[in-house]
Amino acid sequence: MAVFLEEDNVEYSDSFFASAPPLKEQLSIAEKVQDFVARCSDLPSSARESSALASNRLVCITSGGTTVPLERRCVRYIDNFSSGNRGAASTEYFLKAGYAVIFLHRQGSVQPFCRHLPDDPLLACFKPAGQTIQPCSEYSSVVENAVRGHYLAMREGKLLKVQFTTLFEYLQILQIVALAMNGLGHHAMFYLAAAVSDFYVPWDSMVEHKIQSDSGSLAMKLAPVPKMLALLRNHWSPLAFCVSFKLETDKDILLKKARSAREKYGMHAVVANELLTRKERVIVVTDDGEIALEKGKRYPDVEVPLVDFLLNMQTTYIQDSQPHSK
Amino acid sequence: MAVFLEEDNVEYSDSFFASAPPLKEQLSIAEKVQDFVARCSDLPSSARESSALASNRLVCITSGGTTVPLERRCVRYIDNFSSGNRGAASTEYFLKAGYAVIFLHRQGSVQPFCRHLPDDPLLACFKPAGQTIQPCSEYSSVVENAVRGHYLAMREGKLLKVQFTTLFEYLQILQIVALAMNGLGHHAMFYLAAAVSDFYVPWDSMVEHKIQSDSGSLAMKLAPVPKMLALLRNHWSPLAFCVSFKLETDKDILLKKARSAREKYGMHAVVANELLTRKERVIVVTDDGEIALEKGKRYPDVEVPLVDFLLNMQTTYIQDSQPHSK
Repeated sequence: MAVFLEEDNVEYSDSFFASAPPLKEQLSIAEKVQDFVARCSDLPSSARESSALASNRLVCITSGGTTVPLERRCVRYIDNFSSGNRGAASTEYFLKAGYAVIFLHRQGSVQPFCRHLPDDPLLACFKPAGQTIQPCSEYSSVVENAVRGHYLAMREGKLLKVQFTTLFEYLQILQIVALAMNGLGHHAMFYLAAAVSDFYVPWDSMVEHKIQSDSGSLAMKLAPVPKMLALLRNHWSPLAFCVSFKLETDKDILLKKARSAREKYGMHAVVANELLTRKERVIVVTDDGEIALEKGKRYPDVEVPLVDFLLNMQTTYIQDSQPHSK
Repeated sequence: MAVFLEEDNVEYSDSFFASAPPLKEQLSIAEKVQDFVARCSDLPSSARESSALASNRLVCITSGGTTVPLERRCVRYIDNFSSGNRGAASTEYFLKAGYAVIFLHRQGSVQPFCRHLPDDPLLACFKPAGQTIQPCSEYSSVVENAVRGHYLAMREGKLLKVQFTTLFEYLQILQIVALAMNGLGHHAMFYLAAAVSDFYVPWDSMVEHKIQSDSGSLAMKLAPVPKMLALLRNHWSPLAFCVSFKLETDKDILLKKARSAREKYGMHAVVANELLTRKERVIVVTDDGEIALEKGKRYPDVEVPLVDFLLNMQTTYIQDSQPHSK
């Protein structure tokens, strides 16, 4: 598979990271991630063989949108719309299929097992009952399922949740995760469903204080974000199975852009989705062609056939990488 | 008190509203607001006299940041940072003082009675217990207080919650609320703590589809938002007691801007707060001068002395408006 390599991008990325504001709690995030990855790769091979299909695999799922601060002491920022539903649903189905999951998500975005809750579930679903509180009857099962599903995944040690808000945080944490997962070789997967900004204001050209609005209209110039998919594939985790997402509102350019992203960055699969139909239907663009996957009447979510399809693709990918298969 | 009047602003605002995307559920929002205001003004005068000081007053508290879409089928938008803590805390204290409250808040911002909860309170604070779930012991009192406080305020009919996301929604709903509250005369208060965009992309000049990033950097030009404080004071609810907020990161320009806003728009009070110290200290700028209010060791929140100060100011404002006081 041809791999996109661009010296300029590497250099541009270096300067992005060098000038980014330092990640808060960088050491503790790195330690948590490394511990989690080590536990996933330490599974005794008997456990690997005997349990579910994908029990020796780890997927990093990114979810939600990144923000781009417009001021250093940030009052205003550009945000990318994404509820995080895709990432939350996919996390549930990857866990079900036996994967361990690093859920790298935007703070406040939809959480796994919580997709069917109303806004403000605590206030919406509970009422006082004597000295304590209890779920209102119409919400009791959805609330109990959320708490139970999440609790079990955490207790089994199969789910690590890490949160970001800004583009700077997202890319720095993704790099930490990717370098840690590199040791898992072909058993690692990246499932990059987050809506990442294409443009940003470089930290060193950013104004310190709130932009003043006295002088009428506001003109802004944003710089392109370095192409991180290329870094991930070529430098951070070159053996991992990589899935990226393209969201467009204009279906005429969607497939063109998805194909181009697959080729340019050497993605194993690009999931193309259109804003208005993204919950019903996606098209997966691979080296072998394109396949439409639909929720239809058969599945509760389009993520069921999508996760299943990618799991099978990764199985082939792992098999093809083993010496005896050649 | 001198009132700012600007023909150009009225005309500019008319074109803002004329070109804004229509508010979804406009009729049901208007009906809910009008019913709530009518109930507040229908209190028998005996109830007014006998209950708490401010029982015949209604305050509209705005809270959280507005978004400015950059595309019509919105993928990207500019957002104003605001957790909504100020608005949520103030709502609790205005309710306690006897006011009825319309809490006009950004979807997902901090809710009254919920300021002390962790992120994702349902997942963070509950665990399975047999067939059901229960709060973890370390969180049980904070969770129970939140549910109980909110439940009682709603049951007493003293709190109406209305949510917005975009600048267009915010301003359209504020207009509905202000026109409805106009009938309450001097007993109405506006407490405008929301972080409202100063700039926007006019709907009719907005691109339909996601902005494409192929061509390197991105240049954007934003137009100023019409001065809605002037419309509120002069046209929508001219008798109401009006409090606006100024947030700056640079303290040198903060007071200057707060004073100028008070004069320009005829606010009764402008609350000046600096980003880094806003939870500890505010300066209230009024016609009579400036006063610093601090949380110190005496109060759990700086909103306690702030609400108390404004309540007393409004009492004087109501008394001064009555014929026998002249």
